[in-house]
Amino acid sequence: MITGQQLINGQWVQGEAGQYQAVNPATAAFIEPVMSYASKAQVQQAVAAAAAAAPVFAATTLKQRAEFLELCAEEIMALGDALPERVAQETGYPKARAEGERARTVNQLRLFASSIRSGEYLNIRIDTALPDRQPLPRPDLRYTNQPIGPVVVFGASNFPLAFSVAGGDTAAALAAGCPVIVKGHNSHPGTCELVAHALHKAVQKSSLPAGVFSLIMGAGREVGAELVVAPEVKAVGFTGSLAGGMALFQLANNRPEPIPVFAEMGSVNPVVLLPEALEQNAEAIAAGFVGSLTLGVGQFCVNPGVAVAIQSPALDRFCRAASAALAKVPAGVMLNEGIAAAYQKGTAHLSAQTGVELVGSGEAVGDKAGFCTQAKLFKVTAEAFLANPHLQEEVFGHVSVLVSCADQAQLLAVVRALKGQLTGTVQATAAELATQTELISLLRQKVGRLVVNNFPTGVEVCDAMMHGGPFPAATDARFTSVGTASIARFVRPICFQNYPPELLPPELQNANPWRVPRLVNGVKTSAAVDA
Amino acid sequence: MITGQQLINGQWVQGEAGQYQAVNPATAAFIEPVMSYASKAQVQQAVAAAAAAAPVFAATTLKQRAEFLELCAEEIMALGDALPERVAQETGYPKARAEGERARTVNQLRLFASSIRSGEYLNIRIDTALPDRQPLPRPDLRYTNQPIGPVVVFGASNFPLAFSVAGGDTAAALAAGCPVIVKGHNSHPGTCELVAHALHKAVQKSSLPAGVFSLIMGAGREVGAELVVAPEVKAVGFTGSLAGGMALFQLANNRPEPIPVFAEMGSVNPVVLLPEALEQNAEAIAAGFVGSLTLGVGQFCVNPGVAVAIQSPALDRFCRAASAALAKVPAGVMLNEGIAAAYQKGTAHLSAQTGVELVGSGEAVGDKAGFCTQAKLFKVTAEAFLANPHLQEEVFGHVSVLVSCADQAQLLAVVRALKGQLTGTVQATAAELATQTELISLLRQKVGRLVVNNFPTGVEVCDAMMHGGPFPAATDARFTSVGTASIARFVRPICFQNYPPELLPPELQNANPWRVPRLVNGVKTSAAVDA
Repeated sequence: MITGQQLINGQWVQGEAGQYQAVNPATAAFIEPVMSYASKAQVQQAVAAAAAAAPVFAATTLKQRAEFLELCAEEIMALGDALPERVAQETGYPKARAEGERARTVNQLRLFASSIRSGEYLNIRIDTALPDRQPLPRPDLRYTNQPIGPVVVFGASNFPLAFSVAGGDTAAALAAGCPVIVKGHNSHPGTCELVAHALHKAVQKSSLPAGVFSLIMGAGREVGAELVVAPEVKAVGFTGSLAGGMALFQLANNRPEPIPVFAEMGSVNPVVLLPEALEQNAEAIAAGFVGSLTLGVGQFCVNPGVAVAIQSPALDRFCRAASAALAKVPAGVMLNEGIAAAYQKGTAHLSAQTGVELVGSGEAVGDKAGFCTQAKLFKVTAEAFLANPHLQEEVFGHVSVLVSCADQAQLLAVVRALKGQLTGTVQATAAELATQTELISLLRQKVGRLVVNNFPTGVEVCDAMMHGGPFPAATDARFTSVGTASIARFVRPICFQNYPPELLPPELQNANPWRVPRLVNGVKTSAAVDA
Repeated sequence: MITGQQLINGQWVQGEAGQYQAVNPATAAFIEPVMSYASKAQVQQAVAAAAAAAPVFAATTLKQRAEFLELCAEEIMALGDALPERVAQETGYPKARAEGERARTVNQLRLFASSIRSGEYLNIRIDTALPDRQPLPRPDLRYTNQPIGPVVVFGASNFPLAFSVAGGDTAAALAAGCPVIVKGHNSHPGTCELVAHALHKAVQKSSLPAGVFSLIMGAGREVGAELVVAPEVKAVGFTGSLAGGMALFQLANNRPEPIPVFAEMGSVNPVVLLPEALEQNAEAIAAGFVGSLTLGVGQFCVNPGVAVAIQSPALDRFCRAASAALAKVPAGVMLNEGIAAAYQKGTAHLSAQTGVELVGSGEAVGDKAGFCTQAKLFKVTAEAFLANPHLQEEVFGHVSVLVSCADQAQLLAVVRALKGQLTGTVQATAAELATQTELISLLRQKVGRLVVNNFPTGVEVCDAMMHGGPFPAATDARFTSVGTASIARFVRPICFQNYPPELLPPELQNANPWRVPRLVNGVKTSAAVDA
């Protein structure tokens, strides 16, 4: 079923810019079949098709788009076992994890369908005409959100389904009514192609223009750059490294017409362990921490890469328990050779920094096949941490650094020195939390999600999720890339002034046939407007 | 009462970087007293004060901030006649216009007060815990908007009150809970100082930290650049020229931590005159068009700088009527010498382009004092317009270019060639509008506000206003800079996970004491959450 082709304007075509094969990271063996890379000309065809599709797709109703998203979910499930099997082959993930991620992906599509049906995201505001107002009359003004235009989505390596071809960025952009061109991740091209087949079928069955969805694969950064600088493209979604995200961000800002790049670039997700909580629960906290650190071989944006605590006998207990728990963690297969090599280099670099000591390690790699690495927990003093910005750099994988502080003032100094983060976690008793107002105030300035007595891994796809945060966690702290609020990245407002009532989009008409919640003359209501 | 000082961290201090005097554009005479410019060190003091104030201001309640905004309005009114008199002196505007703009400014502050009281802008989303969910439990997740941090606001020349010290950007940022540092416009420094006195009093009476509001004046671009690159600053609001806005945008994107710049940079606001409407109403449309073109000497972001129509006898009638109306428009005083000179240069440049003809002019300047200019209406063929991008460049002031098309296809080609715009206007009969689906689709892709059978001038401050649009009208089409929705520029979401209920901010607590509308488990409600 996998052909190695690109999906461009509804046609499956051989890429014109070379061939390659995916690699099974658990065995380092090539996977069949031979895949292809798109040429510049093919990128332009995909972009032109998306631009042509944009006004037609923008004119679909909320119901039509909701049904299309549900069909996408259905077609993904209809791929059957071939999909989780290919995911497992291409990522080294257990098949159960692949199945779980598939469930998350189709639920995400269905959640967006249900969310846009309500029309809440349109943020409709109506101020009716006041023809007799003095000194000047007020015209009729009606504000709604509309799609921003064609969106380019860069798939992430670590979520081959949920942050890839039909992942969160794509679901949000399609829900908004924006055509999507996915630049698939080269670590899982077969997975990309399978999912693109499903979306292609959904586009066809929904009688949407072919340009609503295209899949492009490319070597190196050229194809991605071509997509981001194409004048027809109006926004970019990206999940990946700081270097990759910033390269796209700068490209996009230096276009003749700058466009928004929503890049989620990961972080070290500090976990602050407060003294009373450690005193009462050092062992349980250590177990939870090591579980979060090593889940999925630590290959998560929200992996806890830094822990912060005050020296104490309880902290020593935490270290002993963490070390013991870590010792039982098997060496893990990483997503690809490059990620495994970066992990080896990153952990070697960490351990070579002044003052860094090893607290514990997972099981050794031994003679395991494929791109395996060993989990690590390091420790460093607050002085050394504050003196060395390298210790704040994310090493992608199952490694963390515990920063040991002399006292509360030093703990606050460490938190104050942290850059922007996706998440910040506090392990605390209720009494501790109530008195730590400065710590909470600092964390609120630095993080997108503030977690108490949980761990940061596990990003719920729901209305209330914020997955983003101050730079360098993301390029724009004002938006989430997970959950229904993420649709805001791909819409922009338009205001209709004195527009003929019968020509207004249905959601703006007085009758409000879809019962969309609207702010009418300052009052939120789903009722019709009395004419 | 005007001292020429800066307001930094609640202190009125002499600027350390030189002196200057404002100029009355109606007479070209200097205005007393001598004003001062801030030094780099003074800029840093203002920034440090804003950063120190940020967490304290962020912790104020909606009610406290609403009362503070209302007090700002009250204190501005308490300045009495001195304010509109100084505005008139510094801008050349009639005192009545200054009074009207004052009313708009205080109403804007009061509208934000009323808007934030509802808590709607917090966009609160609550997904309650599902401890028994399989395969994994869901933690309690609560999402709200919080202030982004200190905001720098650049005052505009043309709205010395409504887009200046206590204008829309400042009102939105303060409403959001962000400290504001205003870089005042050098064309109206006395006005800036008077309004800053009012805000300073409101800060004191509200017992807010002094750093919540500072006013800085500076020569050239250095002070503005210092403010934008200061690490403590988290967002920028700007209204002005494309060159000025883009300089700040690039500075902000090249910071180690990029920050959002919301720059509203004006546009040519095309007015499309459809044939039937012209046939029925050429004279009335011409009168309305010339009124919009020459209002306030054309010194508005939404001034209609381009009109587009198909050649016809009715269009000739429009031209004759416009020419006759224009001939009665007195030469107008522009805001400053630079703006008047740019207008002279811009209109001379326009008239020198291939194919450009003069349709009509306002009264000649003659021996009028001050920075006076003459209104102009030019005409050009669609071929010439399409061949020459200079004809799309905004010339700030009372000048417009009518693009005359051979047919409907050429009219669409002209609209297709337009860049992003704040507004697009169509003069049409109901029957015409119903059949012009391609024109409307094109305009929806290009504009922030779509106006039918009105003219673009007159930007209502209300919930439903969108004042912004695709580049180059603004740096980010996803936000408005006028109306209550503009607060979204200065907030960012944060999600509280598994947070102790009693420590949550009141608006996130189950009881919902302020009756804020919230999305609770997918349903919008102002009710409490059943625990």
